[in-house]
Amino acid sequence: MTNQSQQTGFLENIPVHLVSAGDYEQEARQRLSDPVWAQIAGGAGDELTLRKNRSAFDALDIIPRLLADFRQADTGVHLFGRRHKFPLLIAPIAHQQLLHPQGELATLAAANALETTFIASTLASTPLETIAAESEQPSWFQLYFQPTREQTLDLLQRAEAAGYEAIVVTLDAPISGLRNRVQRAGFTLPAHIPTPNTAGYKPPAPRNLAPGSSVILNGFMADAPRWEDLQWLREHCNLPLLAKGVLSPADAEQCRATGLDGIIVSNHGGRTLDGLPATIDVLPAIRAAVGNELPLLLDSGIRRGTDIFKALALGADAVLLGRPYLYALATAGALGVAHLLRILREELEIAMALSGRPDIRSIQPDAVTGS
Amino acid sequence: MTNQSQQTGFLENIPVHLVSAGDYEQEARQRLSDPVWAQIAGGAGDELTLRKNRSAFDALDIIPRLLADFRQADTGVHLFGRRHKFPLLIAPIAHQQLLHPQGELATLAAANALETTFIASTLASTPLETIAAESEQPSWFQLYFQPTREQTLDLLQRAEAAGYEAIVVTLDAPISGLRNRVQRAGFTLPAHIPTPNTAGYKPPAPRNLAPGSSVILNGFMADAPRWEDLQWLREHCNLPLLAKGVLSPADAEQCRATGLDGIIVSNHGGRTLDGLPATIDVLPAIRAAVGNELPLLLDSGIRRGTDIFKALALGADAVLLGRPYLYALATAGALGVAHLLRILREELEIAMALSGRPDIRSIQPDAVTGS
Amino acid sequence: MTNQSQQTGFLENIPVHLVSAGDYEQEARQRLSDPVWAQIAGGAGDELTLRKNRSAFDALDIIPRLLADFRQADTGVHLFGRRHKFPLLIAPIAHQQLLHPQGELATLAAANALETTFIASTLASTPLETIAAESEQPSWFQLYFQPTREQTLDLLQRAEAAGYEAIVVTLDAPISGLRNRVQRAGFTLPAHIPTPNTAGYKPPAPRNLAPGSSVILNGFMADAPRWEDLQWLREHCNLPLLAKGVLSPADAEQCRATGLDGIIVSNHGGRTLDGLPATIDVLPAIRAAVGNELPLLLDSGIRRGTDIFKALALGADAVLLGRPYLYALATAGALGVAHLLRILREELEIAMALSGRPDIRSIQPDAVTGS
Amino acid sequence: MTNQSQQTGFLENIPVHLVSAGDYEQEARQRLSDPVWAQIAGGAGDELTLRKNRSAFDALDIIPRLLADFRQADTGVHLFGRRHKFPLLIAPIAHQQLLHPQGELATLAAANALETTFIASTLASTPLETIAAESEQPSWFQLYFQPTREQTLDLLQRAEAAGYEAIVVTLDAPISGLRNRVQRAGFTLPAHIPTPNTAGYKPPAPRNLAPGSSVILNGFMADAPRWEDLQWLREHCNLPLLAKGVLSPADAEQCRATGLDGIIVSNHGGRTLDGLPATIDVLPAIRAAVGNELPLLLDSGIRRGTDIFKALALGADAVLLGRPYLYALATAGALGVAHLLRILREELEIAMALSGRPDIRSIQPDAVTGS
Repeated sequence: MTNQSQQTGFLENIPVHLVSAGDYEQEARQRLSDPVWAQIAGGAGDELTLRKNRSAFDALDIIPRLLADFRQADTGVHLFGRRHKFPLLIAPIAHQQLLHPQGELATLAAANALETTFIASTLASTPLETIAAESEQPSWFQLYFQPTREQTLDLLQRAEAAGYEAIVVTLDAPISGLRNRVQRAGFTLPAHIPTPNTAGYKPPAPRNLAPGSSVILNGFMADAPRWEDLQWLREHCNLPLLAKGVLSPADAEQCRATGLDGIIVSNHGGRTLDGLPATIDVLPAIRAAVGNELPLLLDSGIRRGTDIFKALALGADAVLLGRPYLYALATAGALGVAHLLRILREELEIAMALSGRPDIRSIQPDAVTGS
Repeated sequence: MTNQSQQTGFLENIPVHLVSAGDYEQEARQRLSDPVWAQIAGGAGDELTLRKNRSAFDALDIIPRLLADFRQADTGVHLFGRRHKFPLLIAPIAHQQLLHPQGELATLAAANALETTFIASTLASTPLETIAAESEQPSWFQLYFQPTREQTLDLLQRAEAAGYEAIVVTLDAPISGLRNRVQRAGFTLPAHIPTPNTAGYKPPAPRNLAPGSSVILNGFMADAPRWEDLQWLREHCNLPLLAKGVLSPADAEQCRATGLDGIIVSNHGGRTLDGLPATIDVLPAIRAAVGNELPLLLDSGIRRGTDIFKALALGADAVLLGRPYLYALATAGALGVAHLLRILREELEIAMALSGRPDIRSIQPDAVTGS
Repeated sequence: MTNQSQQTGFLENIPVHLVSAGDYEQEARQRLSDPVWAQIAGGAGDELTLRKNRSAFDALDIIPRLLADFRQADTGVHLFGRRHKFPLLIAPIAHQQLLHPQGELATLAAANALETTFIASTLASTPLETIAAESEQPSWFQLYFQPTREQTLDLLQRAEAAGYEAIVVTLDAPISGLRNRVQRAGFTLPAHIPTPNTAGYKPPAPRNLAPGSSVILNGFMADAPRWEDLQWLREHCNLPLLAKGVLSPADAEQCRATGLDGIIVSNHGGRTLDGLPATIDVLPAIRAAVGNELPLLLDSGIRRGTDIFKALALGADAVLLGRPYLYALATAGALGVAHLLRILREELEIAMALSGRPDIRSIQPDAVTGS
Repeated sequence: MTNQSQQTGFLENIPVHLVSAGDYEQEARQRLSDPVWAQIAGGAGDELTLRKNRSAFDALDIIPRLLADFRQADTGVHLFGRRHKFPLLIAPIAHQQLLHPQGELATLAAANALETTFIASTLASTPLETIAAESEQPSWFQLYFQPTREQTLDLLQRAEAAGYEAIVVTLDAPISGLRNRVQRAGFTLPAHIPTPNTAGYKPPAPRNLAPGSSVILNGFMADAPRWEDLQWLREHCNLPLLAKGVLSPADAEQCRATGLDGIIVSNHGGRTLDGLPATIDVLPAIRAAVGNELPLLLDSGIRRGTDIFKALALGADAVLLGRPYLYALATAGALGVAHLLRILREELEIAMALSGRPDIRSIQPDAVTGS
């Protein structure tokens, strides 16, 4: 039993009690106002899905193997021809200036330091071009369909021109979820938080609805993207294109049939429809549906290196980290995010070491069992 | 991701923190006396069924589909030849003047405003004729068997004459449930709350029981309705007739064989026999037993649009809303009930939008899975 | 919906908030000293079995049938040729003078009033002959094997001579259970509580144990009863003989093969070995093992009429009530016990009424399902 | 029902409320500083495994048999040709002087008094030679692989020379687990606590890592033991050799194929990788994999004699006791440990008595069932 430590100088200003993502969550709770906390930490409705995102991971056991050979140990994965040192990416999250004056650029600085891929949100508070310019390794761009195809195409082409290496199109939020906690807390986006990427796009004229029509179903949803729009996007996108928000095998198959390059299994962190399943619970059936070749990523509930391990075992190629980096950002800016990324990296390394899986390929379904 | 809102002027007096049925429940708790709260919110015995009514819904996951076509989206359902804009009806509940001076008429005003069918209780504190006259769309009438067939027939014929469009005969309460919470709180119906519909019917003479007989089993239950009474009612009823309180496939089949037009799967909100199953748990077997054509409704535990969605997915054609509208009635009268109905309508619309089910017919069993 | 009530004069002195066995438990907690409470309410070890005795009942659902014919309704059962008005007997419990100055005689007075069979404990604080003399309907006698066969035979013959109608031999307590709660509370039996039934029997000389032997296994247990002793008892017993404490199908079969007339499925109220299963969980397999004819009784966890109903549905012919009557005895003496028996009787009647089972024979396995 | 008692003089100074391992845990919590408590009581990460170690035992039911013949009752087991009076050994735990000035020697004194085998840790605060000299019955030695084979061989040969009777090689901790609770509490090993067994071994020179390499995976783990090292150890070990930390059937089979003499199923008390399964949950599959002859021991979660019973039923030949004896050591030194060992011995004897299993061989899988 050897006592390892990787504490190095650049983290010496982080309080010693912050040793896990959960600690950053508690710390951020103290630092954020109630409305911002509700907006960041809350989920939809009764937050059933939010809680299940954690309990589903916790219910899984890791079956360790002993005495494995680690002389070629490696945490790297390849996605679309590029090697990632670690199977963890920064999930796209809107409005990061809510958490820190530097917003996305602070998160990005940490991503740069840890050689971690940053996925920029359409609703970032920093222009996509600025993010791309500051990225020391290629970033990805998350795209929401815009009110018109012209606007969507413009956004896509700006991302391609800026040098992003992949496009993540989010499909699970054609309308906002029901965020009761946010409603009760009275959160509204402060006027000083910009959304520069879409600021130039003219909002659509309100649709004239027949009397008695539903604003939601006959208004917003009548204009929501359909499979033909995804097909159109695929045809116009020159980069690897991933669909985010898939939870059913049937949709996963249809994404593959539409020519998408990858799928992100996600329930949007429990923020859209309450009652959606935990992503780790649906992952095995989705992997089975699309076969072994299509890249599968997963988010929603990742808080520990052991969660990353479990997702990899059950079919993911990599995972996305969401809320926890906002907590670290709110607590200590770029330094906090870098520290958190280091924690998760070490946690996965420890999980691999203690479970006898020396590389990502060795983390197979037999490494995990339900309990 | 578009931010929808349907807030309109008529609701501007509702406190902003009331955004769900659960909020109205907490608000009503503050406004009602302990005995009335026990009577309204309580269940039978140890309230196992009351709690299961919620936990059974929460245990189900919704499996979403992406990119569905909503251009013909519609929440309407047809029941007995009439279109309902929304698969939600107002459950029959007695004594609504306990909650608000206007009682049933306040609830009805909200139902009128939202074009929602009101089911008037035999034990309403407002005469059935008054309710029918104030209904802007046809209401239904809930009927308890009376001590004599003459009385039952009189009640039925008054309901038909008043213009009700369907009769709901409640079968699951031949005697009162054991309401320990009510007993401990000392609730009794205040003298000023009338039950005008049955006020003219003479109570039966007490049965002469042999010594050692059970007042419950040999007294009340010996006079309780039997299948032959339901058959008799069927023969004398000129309206669609629904049986309320069915929890077993065998009874559902027998109702259909008796010529009933519909079934309401209900455990009476957990207020009769503690230990009854959650309705959502028995619904699939009942749907399987009666086939796809017989209208099935469900109540007991509906608190969210996602609950309505889950019930529709597992075989219901529509649901009934119970206690929550009493909480809204106690909080803000007709305005509160109307607000609550709007909340539930929007919640179902959001559930349909975010699960990719554009109409009621598309909400099939594959939309829900146990977790 | 008719409001039934059976309140009669003789109970007018019972506080109105005592409406269930659980209420008596809370009331008794206030009235008993900590050590006596530990002795009465506590279970073995960590009290896993004690808690499971309740949760196992609560996990079962009752499936109701509607519109049943109650004109011949009846709660009676026949055991060994005698009709019991109600499928509930008073479980044998030691030292009842701990709870009330009149001890067993107060309990018996209530049993007499409710025509309920009393099972007198070997360790009663009242002589078995006195109990038999005060019984207005035949009582049963619970027998522990005594240190010698002569003593056991003497005790048996005294019981037969006194007029008991059946013998219950307890097999699950050859030594005391590990009662940590009692140890921590420092309970010891007060000197003034007699055990007259066995006072005249000379305790056995301590066995000379080889050095290093176990006092428990090589001392007490070497002298514990074996199957040959049960066979001997069977041969000498002229009354119906029931074995109490059976939890496995194999033991149930062996009891039947040994000629016993009935079996009581029991875990001794969770007071012997912590970790024993809930009786309701093992009942179906035991009923299957012994066939439909052998009388099966059950105790451990009965707190509600619905619990009695569930036990009958899953194979019991009747149940025994344990701790709850001690709580009623401590609270209000004979009056309290009579009230509690009335509560349980009404609860079962209500369960039968609301589940559509008009007699005990109609309460079959299809009336209950796991949830 | 006979009241047994084995209280004897030498325990008269133990407070009367200490009647179980759980009581010693609570007592120790009061006596230890927060950092030491975190170090002793805490587990890895979120302590999922730590909690599961208890809940998994509690979920199992014991199925008792009645009227068994105890005239040859015996708790003895044979391991490697030596009879153990009781199927319980003292698990190897480091640094026992943290808990008591006499450290391992106090624990050993209790083990001597109760004729219980002590397993000395490589990281003991007392020299292995001293422990061996003070052992009144042969002890076992727990061995960690050292940085070089020369060091490992030296340690092994010292243990053999000192008279240990078996070697336990711990395989599940090639690096330390992630001990967040310890990190937050700020525990570090006090300077006055020695680790004499390895004090003379020179630490390895830090490996020169390529830039970007992982200190954990490419540093520590590249030097971690592999199967070939276990094979080497087997060849050099002249004593029975047991592998500790096995949780998978495949590793168990490979240990047997490598010539090991026994296996200890362990998750290191939940202190290494959080998310490992409970040992009792994986035991049956491991027993099935290695057949009935290979000695299997188990630790992690043993707190009750009924836990020992359940482990024996599901395939273990004996168990190891861990944290509880530290709590007893901190509370009352050797006397406390002896008392605790007596408690556990009596608890197992009572479990055997009340379940009708008179010897260890009779405790088979049919004695336990999941609940």
